[in-house]
Amino acid sequence: MSEPTPTPLGTRAAEADAADDLGKLRERFRLPDGIVYLDGNSLGALPAAVPGAVADVVGRQWGELLIRSWDESGWWRAPERIGDRIAPLVGAAPGRIVVGDSTSVNLFKALVGAARLAGEGRTELLVDATTFPTDGYIAASAARMTGLTVVPVEPSAVPAALGPRTAAVLLNHVDYRTGRLHDLAGLTAAVRSAGALAVWDLCHSAGALPVGLDEHGVDLAVGCTYKYLNGGPGSPAYLYVAERHQARFDSPLPGWNSHADPFAMSPVYTAGEGAVRGRVGTPDILSMLALEAALDAWDGVEVEAVRAKSLALTDFFLECVEAYVPAGRVECVTPLAHAERGSQVSLRTDNAAEVMRELIARGVIGDFRAPDVLRFGFTPLYVGFADAERAARTLGHIFG
Amino acid sequence: MSEPTPTPLGTRAAEADAADDLGKLRERFRLPDGIVYLDGNSLGALPAAVPGAVADVVGRQWGELLIRSWDESGWWRAPERIGDRIAPLVGAAPGRIVVGDSTSVNLFKALVGAARLAGEGRTELLVDATTFPTDGYIAASAARMTGLTVVPVEPSAVPAALGPRTAAVLLNHVDYRTGRLHDLAGLTAAVRSAGALAVWDLCHSAGALPVGLDEHGVDLAVGCTYKYLNGGPGSPAYLYVAERHQARFDSPLPGWNSHADPFAMSPVYTAGEGAVRGRVGTPDILSMLALEAALDAWDGVEVEAVRAKSLALTDFFLECVEAYVPAGRVECVTPLAHAERGSQVSLRTDNAAEVMRELIARGVIGDFRAPDVLRFGFTPLYVGFADAERAARTLGHIFG
Repeated sequence: MSEPTPTPLGTRAAEADAADDLGKLRERFRLPDGIVYLDGNSLGALPAAVPGAVADVVGRQWGELLIRSWDESGWWRAPERIGDRIAPLVGAAPGRIVVGDSTSVNLFKALVGAARLAGEGRTELLVDATTFPTDGYIAASAARMTGLTVVPVEPSAVPAALGPRTAAVLLNHVDYRTGRLHDLAGLTAAVRSAGALAVWDLCHSAGALPVGLDEHGVDLAVGCTYKYLNGGPGSPAYLYVAERHQARFDSPLPGWNSHADPFAMSPVYTAGEGAVRGRVGTPDILSMLALEAALDAWDGVEVEAVRAKSLALTDFFLECVEAYVPAGRVECVTPLAHAERGSQVSLRTDNAAEVMRELIARGVIGDFRAPDVLRFGFTPLYVGFADAERAARTLGHIFG
Repeated sequence: MSEPTPTPLGTRAAEADAADDLGKLRERFRLPDGIVYLDGNSLGALPAAVPGAVADVVGRQWGELLIRSWDESGWWRAPERIGDRIAPLVGAAPGRIVVGDSTSVNLFKALVGAARLAGEGRTELLVDATTFPTDGYIAASAARMTGLTVVPVEPSAVPAALGPRTAAVLLNHVDYRTGRLHDLAGLTAAVRSAGALAVWDLCHSAGALPVGLDEHGVDLAVGCTYKYLNGGPGSPAYLYVAERHQARFDSPLPGWNSHADPFAMSPVYTAGEGAVRGRVGTPDILSMLALEAALDAWDGVEVEAVRAKSLALTDFFLECVEAYVPAGRVECVTPLAHAERGSQVSLRTDNAAEVMRELIARGVIGDFRAPDVLRFGFTPLYVGFADAERAARTLGHIFG
């Protein structure tokens, strides 16, 4: 069987891949042959370092060293140690991030913590009205339990909604559905100018673009690790607390792992210092150490270079969609301006669920978000320009 | 080197092991050669089924099937499915237990849920004063956030402390330090007679002895899975909600996984029906499926038989300690009455930390709990009578 003659876009894709310094990073992942994986914004691909690392954790650290591994294999300090591995990817100094629990649980800690850090008379919690639903549900619970009132607000309307009653503002860095990137620096500055705390959800930005938590003065942040950080299904999330808040951060989940001296088994709670204060119960070691091995894929990689490739990929994908898909069949809901675009492209179309099933059947894996959105996530560590071209071409065939 | 002539107790141990129907279950575990592992009440040993299962989860389910595994590999329903595997071990019908998060996080759900289920005017949360510290810390937080007052009380004093203001009572089934087994049936009945809710922590009993959650009318319960259930370091915990409370159970952590229709991505929260209401965020699949494989070790095993062997083991260990350890060097703080004994023996001694280091150096692994307790956990699935005899004999040599 002879190869088909490449299209002009196919030729350009091959050239772009050949010139891509990050292209060789794909070897750090195990991907099935023959598929284009554009769902790394939902579940990142398997890093090649993970299977061996997990086998060692299970067979040797657990099976042979048993209880001694809490010290000898470094299990006990894993939440802070891995937090420090994530820190440079989101622009945080060491000691400000702790890993563990789910994003929802960390969001509860962050929002209750923010409510307790907020000044007297501040009774409102502003919540991104376009948020991933769990953030809204958890925000409602945190508000109910701290006496705040939730005020839903579009991110662009946040500055106008801020006032002397604002306690905190919960925002998504990148909208999960549209892929819109919000102005973390500008919105954080506005929130802080109003005397409130800025709490950011980084699930759809960390590992895809620079975040600059310390630089931009973010108060608190949470994120998952199974999307662009490739930690595996349901891998532990993380909590960032700005240095200026750490000493007063008052967690609603003060489990024994956050105690200043956990093995003293004191009946009196005394919070530990620093990031450890965000811990709760015994850390989930298998998933935690799988994540640690997954982060090896970032060795020597600058997130700025990842961002540059991400934008080039999504630009090129949009150009290919324009070329291959008959006019009027899809509508791009992701902003075209680079400053407003995350690392995904969302296309609105009729019968989106069916179209995605067909794409997957043809080896292009993205996902569907109700009611009418096709999502394509571009993960620069292992997605290339030929992948983008093939995905758009396949989409064109389905509509053709 | 010839074998030493066995002592009379050594001969009895060999006979007891030969007659033990559960002895062959040790083959279901991978234990290092030459050691006696009496710390399964802290970290259970590695079940033989786990390494292969985890390798499949990582390499095939994650690496090859990728995002499709949420459906095709049954990831999405794992928290309820594995809850139903744990259910018979603690006397619960299917549909009442959900797995996920840490014990501390589940305790927060249970206690806040109990406070919300309690009747009007009930303002007190009675908390086992001898509890594992995290339970006390989390109880204090739950009370603070629901307007309750914590009243510390010894378990034996609970009946006298109950009254019309009691909202709920948090108790440990087995005390982590002394190994004392509390009267779950009697205390639950007393709590319910007073119109309050009984919340039990099963960390040190589940998998070691019958619990009978449904039979005894327990309201809510939590437990870890890394001790007698052998789920691995930090494996996910579980939450039990009695059927009569499920429809009104109001979680303080209403993450999207607990929604009636999670993929509708509705901005309005509608709690799901049944055990799923105890879920929060995306489940931690690697650890969760390691636990599922670990539970295979229970196939065909009755917890009543485990209990009978456990009591025989701890009786025999105490007899050996009496025989081998010079009088006055250790004091047993675990009750001798079977009805009051869990599956561990705790011995108080001077220099306990040093004595435990020496025991470990000689291949007998127990643990130390401050300030002066040596803990020896007996896990009948993989510990035998010869192990108990060797542990006591080694302890005798250290004091000899």
